[in-house]
Amino acid sequence: MIPQAVREMWATDLASRSIGMELLDAGEGHAVVRMPVTDTMMNGHDVAHGGYLFLLADSAFACACNSYGPVALAAGADITFVAPVRRGDVLEARAAERVRFGRSGVYDVTVYRGDEVVAEFRGRSRTVGSSPQQQKNGAADGRAE
Amino acid sequence: MIPQAVREMWATDLASRSIGMELLDAGEGHAVVRMPVTDTMMNGHDVAHGGYLFLLADSAFACACNSYGPVALAAGADITFVAPVRRGDVLEARAAERVRFGRSGVYDVTVYRGDEVVAEFRGRSRTVGSSPQQQKNGAADGRAE
Amino acid sequence: MIPQAVREMWATDLASRSIGMELLDAGEGHAVVRMPVTDTMMNGHDVAHGGYLFLLADSAFACACNSYGPVALAAGADITFVAPVRRGDVLEARAAERVRFGRSGVYDVTVYRGDEVVAEFRGRSRTVGSSPQQQKNGAADGRAE
Amino acid sequence: MIPQAVREMWATDLASRSIGMELLDAGEGHAVVRMPVTDTMMNGHDVAHGGYLFLLADSAFACACNSYGPVALAAGADITFVAPVRRGDVLEARAAERVRFGRSGVYDVTVYRGDEVVAEFRGRSRTVGSSPQQQKNGAADGRAE
Repeated sequence: MIPQAVREMWATDLASRSIGMELLDAGEGHAVVRMPVTDTMMNGHDVAHGGYLFLLADSAFACACNSYGPVALAAGADITFVAPVRRGDVLEARAAERVRFGRSGVYDVTVYRGDEVVAEFRGRSRTVGSSPQQQKNGAADGRAE
Repeated sequence: MIPQAVREMWATDLASRSIGMELLDAGEGHAVVRMPVTDTMMNGHDVAHGGYLFLLADSAFACACNSYGPVALAAGADITFVAPVRRGDVLEARAAERVRFGRSGVYDVTVYRGDEVVAEFRGRSRTVGSSPQQQKNGAADGRAE
Repeated sequence: MIPQAVREMWATDLASRSIGMELLDAGEGHAVVRMPVTDTMMNGHDVAHGGYLFLLADSAFACACNSYGPVALAAGADITFVAPVRRGDVLEARAAERVRFGRSGVYDVTVYRGDEVVAEFRGRSRTVGSSPQQQKNGAADGRAE
Repeated sequence: MIPQAVREMWATDLASRSIGMELLDAGEGHAVVRMPVTDTMMNGHDVAHGGYLFLLADSAFACACNSYGPVALAAGADITFVAPVRRGDVLEARAAERVRFGRSGVYDVTVYRGDEVVAEFRGRSRTVGSSPQQQKNGAADGRAE
């Protein structure tokens, strides 16, 4: 059962949904998101642009770190590209919390094609005290400072 | 004058071009890419999805590290998000080589909105010995191992 | 049973041994190293210098990625500091392989004080074709290029 | 003229001083620290342990991010190893602020041997509201949460 905070966030996450991502699961500190790789994701070397692998991993990270309720924002992330990805591949990003401390968190996301790892991502989150709506209207809106 | 290797790569980089990126400049170890932020880049907190900032920075990085001719691939990257980005913003990513050694390179990309920094990206590249076409057909195709 | 390649490497690793590190375990892709925190590791804020936490994690990483026999070198690493560490603390770094591909590898190292996490480290390795001795004498000696 | 906050911090930074580091310069957002590479910094491959390069870079980073007065702590850092370092080498780490935002900062540190780059480091800082003494005695002491 996906937490309500995540379902609401996902429902309005046009960036993720408009490129075909599907939220398969989310719970306390974890999430699974699937994405088919399409023609418009190909780069000039005719493999998937690394930015789309990052996008997928970042979306799974967002669902995992917002699963606890308070608004959590990405402060940063590192990605290692493991294998080339092609049109028609279906990717699955599995996010899991590594550690939380104070307002910070570290989450690991592995991007798979079937059983094969194609990217390893580690995200750094910060929770903010207010609701997304307050964030949207306020000074510190939408990013952990 | 943008090097031919970069112009050819960019011409077929559907991932970058299909979301409105424009290559403004590229030369020995540097590149500048512009992107307008659109509705479909908004996430569930109603700010730009970090993945699109990464995509932009990663494209500038690709142009910079391929400016020398041999095919260079992204091995990985780290991004720090500095300020929230909104629909209608126009972003500019400026990539600059930091150091090259053996087949590896480190490139810094700063993403600006006007004069303001919105993200700092550091990419790690690897050159491969063969052409993109060989990469496309071969075993190690399309990713630095 | 610690692999011979790791035992030999550790026996001559003066950097690790001279500051009190002890290799507790190592096997296929994993390792555990312990270090007591001493007066000379304190920084100007009177907590342990982050560099010593990195040193400990990096040593565990080296033992894990050299457990397979061929010489593996650190290409880079990222560390997140989770909690302050003090004189007298005894730390334990536990390294585990995340993924290997081609000549590259990604290893996660968590640094504990008892059951508490004090740092999260992710290392990037590269294997080289030759022995340490060849590395020592040759041009590319001692670092993945 | 090195700021007083940095001079005081450095005077008690036993971790840096006890291994021979020398603070050459520090000012608004920048710092230069020198370190000779000694026998006890050699690892099992008979090159300098990467942890000592990190230690040096981290010390320069600490001086740069504390140059403004309020206490700044390392939240994390990434390092890329560029070239092997040997006993007898004299290294110089030059730290420069990249961007500050809210309580956060990003600092780049390049480690040189003469004119040659041997490592590239990027540190992430957080300032805390209180003095080091309060930090030392309080709950959140000594680490950015």
